[in-house]
Amino acid sequence: MSPADRPAATARPAPSPDVLERMRAIVGPRGWRDDPAMMAPHLKEWRGLWTGHTPAVVMPGSTDEVAAVVGLAAEAGIAIIPQGGNTGLVGGGVPSEDGTELLVSLARMNRIRDIDPAGGSMIAEAGCILADVQTAAAEAGRLFPLSLASEGSARIGGLISTNAGGVHVLRYGSMRDLVLGLEVVLPDGRIWNGLRRLRKDNTGYALRHLFAGAEGTLGIITAAALTLAPMPRHRAAAFVALPSADAALDLFARARDHAGDLLEAFELINATPLGFALRHLPGMMHPLPSAEGPWFVLIELAGPIPLDDLLEGLLAEALEAGMVEDAALARSEAQRHGFWSLREGLSEAQKHEGASIKHDVSVPVSDVPALITRGTALVLSIVPGARLCPFGHMGDGNIHFNVSRPLDMSDQDFLARWDEIAHAVHDLVAELGGSFSAEHGVGRLKTADLRRYRSAVEVGLMERLKRVIDPAGIMSPGRVLDRS
Amino acid sequence: MSPADRPAATARPAPSPDVLERMRAIVGPRGWRDDPAMMAPHLKEWRGLWTGHTPAVVMPGSTDEVAAVVGLAAEAGIAIIPQGGNTGLVGGGVPSEDGTELLVSLARMNRIRDIDPAGGSMIAEAGCILADVQTAAAEAGRLFPLSLASEGSARIGGLISTNAGGVHVLRYGSMRDLVLGLEVVLPDGRIWNGLRRLRKDNTGYALRHLFAGAEGTLGIITAAALTLAPMPRHRAAAFVALPSADAALDLFARARDHAGDLLEAFELINATPLGFALRHLPGMMHPLPSAEGPWFVLIELAGPIPLDDLLEGLLAEALEAGMVEDAALARSEAQRHGFWSLREGLSEAQKHEGASIKHDVSVPVSDVPALITRGTALVLSIVPGARLCPFGHMGDGNIHFNVSRPLDMSDQDFLARWDEIAHAVHDLVAELGGSFSAEHGVGRLKTADLRRYRSAVEVGLMERLKRVIDPAGIMSPGRVLDRS
Repeated sequence: MSPADRPAATARPAPSPDVLERMRAIVGPRGWRDDPAMMAPHLKEWRGLWTGHTPAVVMPGSTDEVAAVVGLAAEAGIAIIPQGGNTGLVGGGVPSEDGTELLVSLARMNRIRDIDPAGGSMIAEAGCILADVQTAAAEAGRLFPLSLASEGSARIGGLISTNAGGVHVLRYGSMRDLVLGLEVVLPDGRIWNGLRRLRKDNTGYALRHLFAGAEGTLGIITAAALTLAPMPRHRAAAFVALPSADAALDLFARARDHAGDLLEAFELINATPLGFALRHLPGMMHPLPSAEGPWFVLIELAGPIPLDDLLEGLLAEALEAGMVEDAALARSEAQRHGFWSLREGLSEAQKHEGASIKHDVSVPVSDVPALITRGTALVLSIVPGARLCPFGHMGDGNIHFNVSRPLDMSDQDFLARWDEIAHAVHDLVAELGGSFSAEHGVGRLKTADLRRYRSAVEVGLMERLKRVIDPAGIMSPGRVLDRS
Repeated sequence: MSPADRPAATARPAPSPDVLERMRAIVGPRGWRDDPAMMAPHLKEWRGLWTGHTPAVVMPGSTDEVAAVVGLAAEAGIAIIPQGGNTGLVGGGVPSEDGTELLVSLARMNRIRDIDPAGGSMIAEAGCILADVQTAAAEAGRLFPLSLASEGSARIGGLISTNAGGVHVLRYGSMRDLVLGLEVVLPDGRIWNGLRRLRKDNTGYALRHLFAGAEGTLGIITAAALTLAPMPRHRAAAFVALPSADAALDLFARARDHAGDLLEAFELINATPLGFALRHLPGMMHPLPSAEGPWFVLIELAGPIPLDDLLEGLLAEALEAGMVEDAALARSEAQRHGFWSLREGLSEAQKHEGASIKHDVSVPVSDVPALITRGTALVLSIVPGARLCPFGHMGDGNIHFNVSRPLDMSDQDFLARWDEIAHAVHDLVAELGGSFSAEHGVGRLKTADLRRYRSAVEVGLMERLKRVIDPAGIMSPGRVLDRS
């Protein structure tokens, strides 16, 4: 079955008119949306996989308002779904279909409370859009390193709650690694102020890491102390053609040896999704039009000194060793941006080729070639003619193992094979010691996978944590843990 | 009162002869020590602040043996203290004085199970000594970045359980940031196998971050998947004299601008502890014998390219701007090691000057000068003539704010002022938004501080986590949380 057919979360009572009236009094008219047209963008997952219902979209303007809203929900036993930019990919931020879950949007809490360039930190509210945080950091001469395709819409609270990844994880880690402290409204409406901007703080359990990545099931993140990195003054990028994923792994190991941590991104791209991007997206140019591939890598170095020579040296070595077919060094910022537009456009381009089944998986970095070779054979044995579109963050072992339908198959027939294909791919990933959700999270889409691929001990620990932090089970029920 | 006078943890039944016999059968004669002379090194904290008693030192040789030992302890309601290299600084790894706590040493589990240089990961058992892990990584052409004074004795399990810091946190993060996955024996004797070596894995709550830094109160870490970094091929170091901590902060901001993430360490050293090291430790040389200071900084860059020019450029700029009094660039590896010997010897040297009261505190990086200026005035108002010995990891905001007794005061009289001085310093740190334990943890030493300086909401969350993971309260009772 396709994700849209999955059952809604456990039903709970819908909020009574009285409770809704009290909620509205907490946030005031500016924080209340119940007009269907105004609510619509909050209720539809952006790819259209889920559409939910809610009595109202509640938009608190402050931490105290969030606390009051959650406190009232706790009192009334009403389920809450926190939402950021609604750019999630696993159905976590969209309410269920039965209309019982109250959507709490953090969009109005979008203030950067403070920025300290010398100390390298910033305090941002949950509703800040990632691009605005990047801009504020840059204006202070610092880098906020998280970077991903949805950065123009994704908001800080959601990015932390899903421990977002993106293209710079290799160098800077995931979102949780950029969080120094958090402010969280707990499921009983109390506020935990853990907004410390410390690089070292060993005073008990690491609570921020409990809420980061919890997908809204343990509370609502309202603000975060974020770490800022030095702004790299120089970048160098290359687009490289290679004969195999094995060659890409060799190049990766050599690039780490050669450039150390100046290596900021190492993105693997298969010829098929690259072809889709060139065909469907306006203004795209193949950086190596005569190269055969069928594998390509976008390498980027970043640091405080000019890096073109270092990158050229790496490519010359790799060409000489026969590891690489051809390589193009970006000769201008425009050309470098062109390389990245291609990379960032891969997901969008795939939409133009009909239905697709996507797997956001990771394996140990050394096993990326095995994942691709064996995964391709598996998928083709289930749906001959399926078009394999693997690409992703090779340096993190995180491959978006995406599959577009065969040219001669209907979307519906293809999507009917979703579970069959996903199980085969996820079984392979498990065999390789990998993860069925590298960066998107579990949400509603992968709760069964969590139970299938994680031990009873591990799931049991998570269930105990959920029960002790949210005993009434009102926070994002059915997300991450299906029996919550 | 001094730490040695603090009450022991809550009393529990001592293990019966029958239970001890069954324990011994689990681990066999090689895993059993009950001879007082053999047990002694495990029972005394290395500075002599605590000495405990235990019926036996149990040394399991495998994860299954740890599981059986803990399972039996759970059945019998016996408290367990896990111990690594016994290099902790807050009394967490030494059993209580009443002899009821069973010491479980991980020292025999010292195998590196696997190393993957291309993928940049290693699986090491909890008993591996840090220096051995560093060596194994180096032999595979990779860097394990954690580095601290006790690296010749400290063991991986303890380093993770205390989220150890050290001199490279600025660049690579603390120990928890180097952990990809964990294997843990839970307080009921079951094994959680979370030994994944993935750089991205968003499948539910981040359990590894719950056990990392929990100081043995939630289970026993038996093995870890660790991340390895590229081996820097070049290093450049300088020893710099400056007139004030404010100037050091300016230099730090400029160094981050100038060298970006090639800046690996930025260690601040006051003239007083520097003088102690030069006086008491053999073979030490002042890198800037004619400089007045009274502040010094050890800067180190590391990366894939020669870095002397970059560092010289930074120092020339800083000298020209009048920020720096004088600077010496290490002209050889021997000279660079000499700089570090001075830095690493500061704690040891202080012992030769009589009793000292140490504060392992952190503040936001920008507030380091305020901490030092105001902290010095506070301490001198309590004990005139006290010798202030601040030094530490300025780039992390983590200053070891140490105080040696006045020359004309007895050790005992000085130590009698411990709580008075510690409260004053910790109150100041709290006012600056800092932490009363930056890298050493809470252990037995700072449980009252946890309650004093963290909110009831925060401590309450920790207590709930403790209760749900270790309902019988057998794991390191009284550590971190005093009422556990």
